[in-house]
Amino acid sequence: MPLSTYRQFEPALAYAAEATERTMDRLLPRGDTGEARVFEAMRYSSLGGGKRLRAFFVLASATLFKVSAMSALRVASAIEFVHAYSLIHDDLPAMDDDDMRRGKPSCHKQFDEATAILAGDALQALAFEVLAQEATHGDPAVRAALVFELARAAGAHGMVGGQMLDLLAETRSDQSVDAIDQSIGAITRLQRLKTGALISFSCTAGAILGKAAEPLRVALAAYAHDLGLAFQIVDDLLDVEGDPAELGKATQKDADAGKATFVSILGLERARSQAGLLAQQAAAHLEPFGAPADLLKQAAGFVVTRRS
Amino acid sequence: MPLSTYRQFEPALAYAAEATERTMDRLLPRGDTGEARVFEAMRYSSLGGGKRLRAFFVLASATLFKVSAMSALRVASAIEFVHAYSLIHDDLPAMDDDDMRRGKPSCHKQFDEATAILAGDALQALAFEVLAQEATHGDPAVRAALVFELARAAGAHGMVGGQMLDLLAETRSDQSVDAIDQSIGAITRLQRLKTGALISFSCTAGAILGKAAEPLRVALAAYAHDLGLAFQIVDDLLDVEGDPAELGKATQKDADAGKATFVSILGLERARSQAGLLAQQAAAHLEPFGAPADLLKQAAGFVVTRRS
Repeated sequence: MPLSTYRQFEPALAYAAEATERTMDRLLPRGDTGEARVFEAMRYSSLGGGKRLRAFFVLASATLFKVSAMSALRVASAIEFVHAYSLIHDDLPAMDDDDMRRGKPSCHKQFDEATAILAGDALQALAFEVLAQEATHGDPAVRAALVFELARAAGAHGMVGGQMLDLLAETRSDQSVDAIDQSIGAITRLQRLKTGALISFSCTAGAILGKAAEPLRVALAAYAHDLGLAFQIVDDLLDVEGDPAELGKATQKDADAGKATFVSILGLERARSQAGLLAQQAAAHLEPFGAPADLLKQAAGFVVTRRS
Repeated sequence: MPLSTYRQFEPALAYAAEATERTMDRLLPRGDTGEARVFEAMRYSSLGGGKRLRAFFVLASATLFKVSAMSALRVASAIEFVHAYSLIHDDLPAMDDDDMRRGKPSCHKQFDEATAILAGDALQALAFEVLAQEATHGDPAVRAALVFELARAAGAHGMVGGQMLDLLAETRSDQSVDAIDQSIGAITRLQRLKTGALISFSCTAGAILGKAAEPLRVALAAYAHDLGLAFQIVDDLLDVEGDPAELGKATQKDADAGKATFVSILGLERARSQAGLLAQQAAAHLEPFGAPADLLKQAAGFVVTRRS
């Protein structure tokens, strides 16, 4: 049954994860040719795990504009391919050097570094291939718009730029002398690029697919903006307070790296209340949509109460 | 003056390189924000070097269908961004581990590994961003088709798959027992994926931009197929006979890695004559276009006589 029939967030998220995973499985390459090792690595790192929040945002925003399930699932798959590629590359020894991801060995531990680099590269290409195909939307202008927006969100002015900032932040030691306000500004910008851009794409993809009027797209972008920030603050909180077993990855990484985070700057208490405020603010942007946006409103609550 | 006014290949190639480089420079990010290091690495590795053969193929095929210079130059830039990204990632220590590229330190030597991985990732995203923008072509169906074809050519069923095969070939030792015919089949397939797919995209991009009739697009694909193979055979020859100073990179890499190449299987003499035959065959596919295809015909000759 389609996502629009769900009234509660958690079953809706589970449905979105399962349906998107099935679509991803169909879209991912498989075969037994010589290069199949890279297909396996792509499947290993993109299937069988993750909350699929980004996929949920695509599907939930698509229900607001009566977009077909197939269109929404293909776009949800594309964004999850980009997300998976970014995790593979971020986990590499030259980057964050993480051995575990989603409770299993990270891609370069399971395969090797070269295969991990290639699997990430191919997942990025696959995302754009999927968006550009006619099955994603009958109107090629919509497909071109999706490609443009995802490329912007994923590239140097989005996710990759944010990851660069993040790596540089680890190697800089001048944070202690920054005024707190400056640090908050810098870290907010980092987050907006590193994770916010993809979350914004996820939340506005339904509006692009549904050719929504500009004010509705802007409302979804505002929701995504506040929600993305809340999401990152909670990520920082979980890095301090979370359970490595539940998270499926190591904690205390930021503190060990001496990295400024929302928690190191604001403290646990203020960080927690700031995340809560942002989640409420995010939900408030959805007023124009009324009841059909209930799932997205609940998602904002989930983002700040999640434990992994 | 536009490419169509050139009669001789070498000045035409120089023009294509210069005009594409100017376009790439405009399209690449610049700025002085915190993440500018990745902008610099993108510029370092994509500007100021390379023959720009792929760009030439786009521009030359576009002149056959009276495509605007702006459209062709943007597509040429996109393909050169993908080519540059692939070289950055191929040069990484975990892959081919090359310290030099186009006569200067490779990206990870000039910057660092993390920055090189990110610069490659961002260049790939930039290629699709450029293709999807309205300035590339007024018809969104053409833009979506370009994105789809480039994504296929660059991904797991194209360039990335070929690089995977290439890496696995280095670590396998069973080549000596293969029959020569099998080896030639395997190595031809590897080449078709690793370099052939992008060359095919370059040669057929003009037909996509010009909405050419199917038989003309097929003729260009056939040209690209034979020319791509000739190109790779000459690459193998240059790895044995070439001058490292002229090439701007180390030679004898394949022999040192114990890798099967067209030269190791066919011998110098037969490899050289095979490349020549393929170049003639490539040019023959261009008969339907008559005189306007002269530059592409000359390009086939250049590919087999080039010294770098």
